[in-house]
Amino acid sequence: MTRLLATALLSTALAVPAAASELRDMALDYFEPLPSTVPQMADNRATPEKIDLGKALFFDPRLSASGVFSCYSCHNLTTGGDDNLETSIGHGWQKGPRNAPTVLNAVLNIAQFWDGRAEDLKAQAKGPVQAGVEMANTPDNVVATLKSMGQYIDWFEAAFPGEADAVSFDNMARAIEAFEATLITPAPFDAFLNGDEMALDDTQKEGLQLFVDKGCVTCHNGVNLGGNGYFPFGLVEKPGADILPEGDKGRYSVTATASDEYVFRAAPLRNVALTAPYFHSGKVWDLKTAVQVMGAAQLGEDVSDEEATRIVAFLDSLTGTMPAITTPVLPPETDATPRPSAEVMQR
Amino acid sequence: MTRLLATALLSTALAVPAAASELRDMALDYFEPLPSTVPQMADNRATPEKIDLGKALFFDPRLSASGVFSCYSCHNLTTGGDDNLETSIGHGWQKGPRNAPTVLNAVLNIAQFWDGRAEDLKAQAKGPVQAGVEMANTPDNVVATLKSMGQYIDWFEAAFPGEADAVSFDNMARAIEAFEATLITPAPFDAFLNGDEMALDDTQKEGLQLFVDKGCVTCHNGVNLGGNGYFPFGLVEKPGADILPEGDKGRYSVTATASDEYVFRAAPLRNVALTAPYFHSGKVWDLKTAVQVMGAAQLGEDVSDEEATRIVAFLDSLTGTMPAITTPVLPPETDATPRPSAEVMQR
Repeated sequence: MTRLLATALLSTALAVPAAASELRDMALDYFEPLPSTVPQMADNRATPEKIDLGKALFFDPRLSASGVFSCYSCHNLTTGGDDNLETSIGHGWQKGPRNAPTVLNAVLNIAQFWDGRAEDLKAQAKGPVQAGVEMANTPDNVVATLKSMGQYIDWFEAAFPGEADAVSFDNMARAIEAFEATLITPAPFDAFLNGDEMALDDTQKEGLQLFVDKGCVTCHNGVNLGGNGYFPFGLVEKPGADILPEGDKGRYSVTATASDEYVFRAAPLRNVALTAPYFHSGKVWDLKTAVQVMGAAQLGEDVSDEEATRIVAFLDSLTGTMPAITTPVLPPETDATPRPSAEVMQR
Repeated sequence: MTRLLATALLSTALAVPAAASELRDMALDYFEPLPSTVPQMADNRATPEKIDLGKALFFDPRLSASGVFSCYSCHNLTTGGDDNLETSIGHGWQKGPRNAPTVLNAVLNIAQFWDGRAEDLKAQAKGPVQAGVEMANTPDNVVATLKSMGQYIDWFEAAFPGEADAVSFDNMARAIEAFEATLITPAPFDAFLNGDEMALDDTQKEGLQLFVDKGCVTCHNGVNLGGNGYFPFGLVEKPGADILPEGDKGRYSVTATASDEYVFRAAPLRNVALTAPYFHSGKVWDLKTAVQVMGAAQLGEDVSDEEATRIVAFLDSLTGTMPAITTPVLPPETDATPRPSAEVMQR
């Protein structure tokens, strides 16, 4: 009975199954493959020196007041560029307000954070360093830390040649952006878009067709299948308060515009199979469930188990190959390095 | 006046300056260079499969109850294999009781932990995973976590072929030991011992001579310049309670033998320039100060600033080259993976 129903649903969804080349042509209307080289920022060229410095900074826990957390702590490069927690745990064991998004391919998003409040990764990088519930540091203390180590001064001067004061909080953020721009993960779906029609298996192709037919593609399109526009969460039907907590009004806190209440940046879907739990609340651990929640909330679509399974198979084709990252060797502290403090300030 | 005194002291210390080859011969009486290949454990051969699995486990924060901490968190491979904190911060923002020792070259220590309570790295690896103030996990929960991910099952079966139940807490520890055995850091001092008499500069050679003449070598000898014997901290003169807190009686807690009160494993000195702060209490940040504290406490020697500077220059020659570590790609959680819990249990 269930199987019959599944077959019936499937034949409806795929009434006219597209040939692989037609499917690919259609996909190219909505999506684009990753670029073959590191994306460049117009205002922050990613030079090798800047990338190397940025990698050191990304891994350096001394950017946090406690000396415990680095960018890597919550944007863990071994687990999909995020931390696999509902919301991150930071300074003083405080919980952050929203699920940590992946850093992988983030350079290609239109803006950063769930509410898009940072226009790019270098603006984003300054946030967690200062957030009291994350790294709880201050720009002055970060700069004092970096200037206390001669090797860092040399690295900043090489990365920002000719600048009178190369070691600055802004340049820290620029270097981190340059490193993060290298975190590009080409996936089977890119191979498919680039012309390898065997890169997706039949189930994944059916999932891609469903992804388009159901309307997921309305918000999840472009190079990152999302990350490029803002939409109300609960467009058709608001999910429960566990998934969409009332206190977090999303982009409204950025624009103070009533129509931005509960509006979030559409989640970019590359490597989504690695980045559970889902949504800004991090309340859904199962990708299939997340797909079904989205169908109901955003599209008014009752996505069946069988359909969701196919869509998840397609989403699996977005799991990319990590660039090889060797852990950097960081300079040791000196007498002048501010000492770590685990104290939790009341701000 | 100070300079005169320094010169006088120095000429006493180096009354008969040894030629480089004599110095090297003498050094070989006390020290040995790192082996040129990964040290092998008699009861746990480090196969490539075991090393790869161990690297994944070492980096995996899901070995902790909270999902926040991995072995890497406190044995950070970017900062000398330790965490540069007085004592580590763990589950629930609790402070650990002692300074985290470096994992680098630790396989060559006679036993692990400051009090030597673990006979080897595979025994050590089980400690922090279960410690309430560190990763706060249980063996059952760790095994359930690992068994929930098919990729881990495959990796364990490849690393422990033919075992009926390859995914076990013991095998987790064995694999981590195998990876950690690869963390060997050949240093200029090894090149010197191996015959390159130019590998140490003159100041470093003077420091080496002082290190022997002053008696530092009594406890800090062998391949790791320490890590191979137990000695009372404060043999001649107990340091202040800030450096040697009364509540921590060291090896006494392992052996319950009165003569083991305030006895600790002599700290291995490889990469010591990277592993501030010093001592089991982590209360001294400056290496020169640490050398002087040791001189007074252990040898009854008033080590002058000039002598300490030379000894520190010698210790700098123990800073080795890190092996290239690429961050592993870890398997994603499944529905069966136990969810992280940040809750602090009262045990």
